[in-house]
Amino acid sequence: MELGFYMPTKVIVGADCVRRNADIFGIGKKALIVTGASSAKKNGALDDAVHALKAKNVQYAVFDKVMSNPTINCVYEGAEAAMEEEADFIVAIGGGSPMDAAKAIALLAVTDIDKKELLTADIGSRALPMIHIPTTAGTGSEVTPYSILTNHEKKTKASIGAPCLFPSYALLDAKYTDHLGKRTTVNTAIDALSHSVEGMMSARANIMADAIAREGIRIISSLFDKLIQGYLTRPDREQLLYASMLGGVVISQTKTTAVHSMGYSLTYFHGIDHGRANGLLLGEFTEYTERYAPSKVRDILSCMNMTSVGEFKAKLSRILGAKEKFEPEELEMYADIADAAGGTRNSFHRPERDEILGIYRKSLL
Amino acid sequence: MELGFYMPTKVIVGADCVRRNADIFGIGKKALIVTGASSAKKNGALDDAVHALKAKNVQYAVFDKVMSNPTINCVYEGAEAAMEEEADFIVAIGGGSPMDAAKAIALLAVTDIDKKELLTADIGSRALPMIHIPTTAGTGSEVTPYSILTNHEKKTKASIGAPCLFPSYALLDAKYTDHLGKRTTVNTAIDALSHSVEGMMSARANIMADAIAREGIRIISSLFDKLIQGYLTRPDREQLLYASMLGGVVISQTKTTAVHSMGYSLTYFHGIDHGRANGLLLGEFTEYTERYAPSKVRDILSCMNMTSVGEFKAKLSRILGAKEKFEPEELEMYADIADAAGGTRNSFHRPERDEILGIYRKSLL
Repeated sequence: MELGFYMPTKVIVGADCVRRNADIFGIGKKALIVTGASSAKKNGALDDAVHALKAKNVQYAVFDKVMSNPTINCVYEGAEAAMEEEADFIVAIGGGSPMDAAKAIALLAVTDIDKKELLTADIGSRALPMIHIPTTAGTGSEVTPYSILTNHEKKTKASIGAPCLFPSYALLDAKYTDHLGKRTTVNTAIDALSHSVEGMMSARANIMADAIAREGIRIISSLFDKLIQGYLTRPDREQLLYASMLGGVVISQTKTTAVHSMGYSLTYFHGIDHGRANGLLLGEFTEYTERYAPSKVRDILSCMNMTSVGEFKAKLSRILGAKEKFEPEELEMYADIADAAGGTRNSFHRPERDEILGIYRKSLL
Repeated sequence: MELGFYMPTKVIVGADCVRRNADIFGIGKKALIVTGASSAKKNGALDDAVHALKAKNVQYAVFDKVMSNPTINCVYEGAEAAMEEEADFIVAIGGGSPMDAAKAIALLAVTDIDKKELLTADIGSRALPMIHIPTTAGTGSEVTPYSILTNHEKKTKASIGAPCLFPSYALLDAKYTDHLGKRTTVNTAIDALSHSVEGMMSARANIMADAIAREGIRIISSLFDKLIQGYLTRPDREQLLYASMLGGVVISQTKTTAVHSMGYSLTYFHGIDHGRANGLLLGEFTEYTERYAPSKVRDILSCMNMTSVGEFKAKLSRILGAKEKFEPEELEMYADIADAAGGTRNSFHRPERDEILGIYRKSLL
């Protein structure tokens, strides 16, 4: 048995946990709140964080310029704001985009890395401490040491990762996810599912990550029909947010696989939401993996009370609805990109370039 | 849903993981190795640790005076050794006793606490960093922030705990457990089982700790018959060591319950091994808890493929063999002590003093 496990983030889940844990916001003298343009304001998370900061007499500034799929320029701009404001910790509020951007900002505020080298350099071991408040139930970024950034040079998304990028705290309150629309709810839930399923199909899969992944898969699959109907109660959303965090714990140990690497092109070139992109590819990749690891896939399916990958694919299709249209030539290019990606190599069984193309075709044409 | 989760120890499991991860031993300039008188020498763990330290050119001294159920005097003596040697980190090797003593030593080497106040003072947030190498599969201490010490004044065992007492690293290699005799193997395995079962019956039980506990219970119960026969293969021992770590993760979140509080007197006054003491009481306490939390207990039993607490009690009896003899008066005193203990209050349903006595009687007379 071989196993490594390290997840130092302190996770606190519960109604009103931000205001009820105001003490946590006393970890520094001035916070930079990193968030998107609007959602954190609407769902109440920003108010709660500001309330907690004020309760501790901690100063703060707000950097609310994080876009979907944040760019390298964006995180350098955020780091400049952190330095100008002399922030000594970061409060990240939002979905994956603000949380991922916040990690890079926390890093770049204290570590001088050339913009061109960010995705390849040794990023060292220093970053500002971070408090993460997810407002979607999908990314799990609040418990991972990864920051996924859009790399225009390579026309895809790429990640930086190091133990110093684990947030110090993750505060999970499902009320912030109450008003997410059906599309976002579904896409993020499928992203969370993908994390746990991919974790079990990862080259780095291990017995402990598998146990956590099974729990995440069980929970999300128990909500499949509600996701199709588009009606979730607060307890359902609590379960989803919890399962999303579990998926984050899983990939914090195992990383993601070819599914994520292949999905990035659907997002970059086709504007397809990240979670949906994974969902579109997950069924076929599971079928591909079944050839090489049938017992692993059986294990995944049994968590969903399913007996065949076909059943899983059919359910995903119903959840995701009508697929976007693609040209065969596009997929050739995407296959080239995914073939060179780290996630592809991290698959339990690494697909060759032509197998990647085959998975794209079966998934999308 | 309410949940807190924090377990910052980096866990590495695998054959020869101490020598293969020598880099970890470069975390300081001089180590104090804290261990018992002999077992770490016999099972090869001390040799491996010294090899790793030498590979990193790190100096070390050995404090090998930790007895079973370490005393407060012992840990103050160890802290003095750490200061004299100017050790800046601790390597703990052994079962629960050396690992628990090492945590108190790591604390007292950098924090001045009066001997009389150790068990009641706020112990602060500073301790030397620690690398823990368990050589039994039971305590889980390598992933908890607790140090259990014998308190002669109160004639029982008591714990200190704080986040700074989480070891930085836990290195788990089952080869160190290969030569444990049947009695130690059984007692430690039952201790590990008790941690996961108690975690689910704790007032602090939560959905995430439950998921980890179920995994631990499943693994240990799958080895019940081998424990009765007394023959375990290396893979069995790997499973046990892993499950013991899971039990530690569980109680690092939930703490232990009345079972541990009640067991301490069996150890203190009757010299019964800690794990066995828990095992003798676990069945009856599970039956007691079933009255108040039947679904919780059903959940625990189902992990063992059992349908009644009677079945669980019968299996524990077979594993533990003939019981020690107790006088009714002894049990009266033990009930008074357990009634005042923190673990008792941490039970999902807190037993009253006379209920505690009833559990003792049913378990032991």
